Amino acid sequence: MPFFRKTLFSMFVGAAMVLPVAQAYEVAAHEVPVPDTVSPALQQSIAKGLPLNWNQVPKDAEGWRKAVSRSARQVSAKVDALAGQLNVSIEESDLAGVRVFTLTPSTVRPENRNRLLLHIHGGCYVFLPGKAGLQEGLLMAAKGGYKVVSIDYRMAPDHPYPAAMDDAMTVYREVLKQYPADRIGVFGTSTGGGMTLALVLRARTEGLPLPGAVAPGTPWSDLTKTGDSYFTNEGVDTMLVSYNGFLKGAAEIYANGHDMKDPQLSPVYGDLSGFPPTLLTSGTRDLFLSNTVRVHQKMREAGVNADLIVIEGLSHAGYYLLPSDAPELCYYFNQLNQFFNKHLKQ
Amino acid sequence: MPFFRKTLFSMFVGAAMVLPVAQAYEVAAHEVPVPDTVSPALQQSIAKGLPLNWNQVPKDAEGWRKAVSRSARQVSAKVDALAGQLNVSIEESDLAGVRVFTLTPSTVRPENRNRLLLHIHGGCYVFLPGKAGLQEGLLMAAKGGYKVVSIDYRMAPDHPYPAAMDDAMTVYREVLKQYPADRIGVFGTSTGGGMTLALVLRARTEGLPLPGAVAPGTPWSDLTKTGDSYFTNEGVDTMLVSYNGFLKGAAEIYANGHDMKDPQLSPVYGDLSGFPPTLLTSGTRDLFLSNTVRVHQKMREAGVNADLIVIEGLSHAGYYLLPSDAPELCYYFNQLNQFFNKHLKQ
Repeated sequence: MPFFRKTLFSMFVGAAMVLPVAQAYEVAAHEVPVPDTVSPALQQSIAKGLPLNWNQVPKDAEGWRKAVSRSARQVSAKVDALAGQLNVSIEESDLAGVRVFTLTPSTVRPENRNRLLLHIHGGCYVFLPGKAGLQEGLLMAAKGGYKVVSIDYRMAPDHPYPAAMDDAMTVYREVLKQYPADRIGVFGTSTGGGMTLALVLRARTEGLPLPGAVAPGTPWSDLTKTGDSYFTNEGVDTMLVSYNGFLKGAAEIYANGHDMKDPQLSPVYGDLSGFPPTLLTSGTRDLFLSNTVRVHQKMREAGVNADLIVIEGLSHAGYYLLPSDAPELCYYFNQLNQFFNKHLKQ
Repeated sequence: MPFFRKTLFSMFVGAAMVLPVAQAYEVAAHEVPVPDTVSPALQQSIAKGLPLNWNQVPKDAEGWRKAVSRSARQVSAKVDALAGQLNVSIEESDLAGVRVFTLTPSTVRPENRNRLLLHIHGGCYVFLPGKAGLQEGLLMAAKGGYKVVSIDYRMAPDHPYPAAMDDAMTVYREVLKQYPADRIGVFGTSTGGGMTLALVLRARTEGLPLPGAVAPGTPWSDLTKTGDSYFTNEGVDTMLVSYNGFLKGAAEIYANGHDMKDPQLSPVYGDLSGFPPTLLTSGTRDLFLSNTVRVHQKMREAGVNADLIVIEGLSHAGYYLLPSDAPELCYYFNQLNQFFNKHLKQ
């Protein structure tokens, strides 16, 4: 019964049985079915399978610019339609030199009248400029009844690190003139989640008051290929597929030679003690599951009030592929909403 | 740029682009390295790789009995040593016909004097009878300063469903005569986690008061091969490897023809509203990640105060392969301890 000797049995003797050590093991090819434990909308999204050309990365700055602007044009039109459908107004303005979009739902809920949510969009520090970055902010404004300010920060290749974080901090400083910190929540997904974490770290360094609560969704907390799920969910995550290729390319063009393990680029390496209440989100097949739980674990060890949800069957930020009434998307926004409502001062 | 059309771009238009639907996709063979984001103790445990004969399942009842008793003999000796090392006394007794072990640390912490933790061991409803099931209970008694009663419930093949749950309920009813429910916590891992959930469901059905807090660790909440991580973490989890084989065999011998989707066998199908505060635990490479997060998601949707931790690099119940001072094991017990201390009445 070698199985029992090495698994159930070794629950008790494993530490004493030191076997030869390997650095890796091979996972055989296997089929991953569309789960029957998720909504039909998510099933349909997963059933599209892996994108075939996930690793066709632009070769130079001009290639990135073209790809970004083509996608931004198409996405912006969808964003306008979504805003109309959700009945959220979009107002563009300038805050100390940084372009922001103020998103106002038809009804700001009474308990949110003195609160503001800052939104930091995703897109790997290169994609979703302008209105193209507003999907998440619009959904939160509509589903939560919040006024949301979304930051249209500068991006690579034209503006590598630290331009994005400089812009985010500029906007944070500006809204602090209008709202007490404990009434401000900050949220964002992927790159927006990583920047949310980096914003808190930098606010502390600069002596600014910290926001009342933050919700980094599946944050890009480690720009290097470090962390278990970069490997275990490789080829499983239908959104990102793998670090090798696109993510790697974007990390390089953003870091632009800067140390990728600097906590301002990879906040998992920062001192996460003293953070405000934090809600982290991931999915079972998310390439960034480890990016999420490493932050959560480190926060909990530091005594932070850090909450985690992991959504069944979801790839990286997979809710953004779903219609706005899909159960997984509603679950996510309900959780965000309850979280901010609990922790932000009225 | 087909990549952008199907991933980043489709964040916004995916719902409108209905493509031909597949039922599964192939994950190519790939290497899973030992993560450098976990402790040396966990690295050493992972480096042992997959057990080669995980699917060599006993062929009949006699085969199960032999495998169980051989493992139990060896494990019991280790448990005695652990109890000595942790300075926890083990007292065997009978509660209304069910054998229990009362585990008392050298010092019961003052805040725990009027509290009791009920422990339900794991082992797939067949393994770890008698003292062999006490590792987790001993660690909790020592690290939390709690008195723990561990239930030595009857198991398959001689006593299939519902014997195990009958015994757990008998003990719960008995301890309710000595402790108010809000001072009783229930915890257990794997099968013990599933039984913890089933106990709450059955207590409610029977009109008993519910425990003050429960902590199902990576619970076997679905006895059928249903849920995303049964597939995504197949061949990745170094403890269980796959549902096919051993788990399947144990589920069949326990259910003994009973419907495996009955919530008493697979509590994820139960009505989870009204549960007491719940702490769920899993790991990034846990075959039971979905067993854990499906319960968490359902509880959160029902408004339960349900907390989740997912440990980086951990396979199913992987902390039990580690020395008692390994960081991941200490993290788990610290979290359990803080959780019960917060939610149980003094």
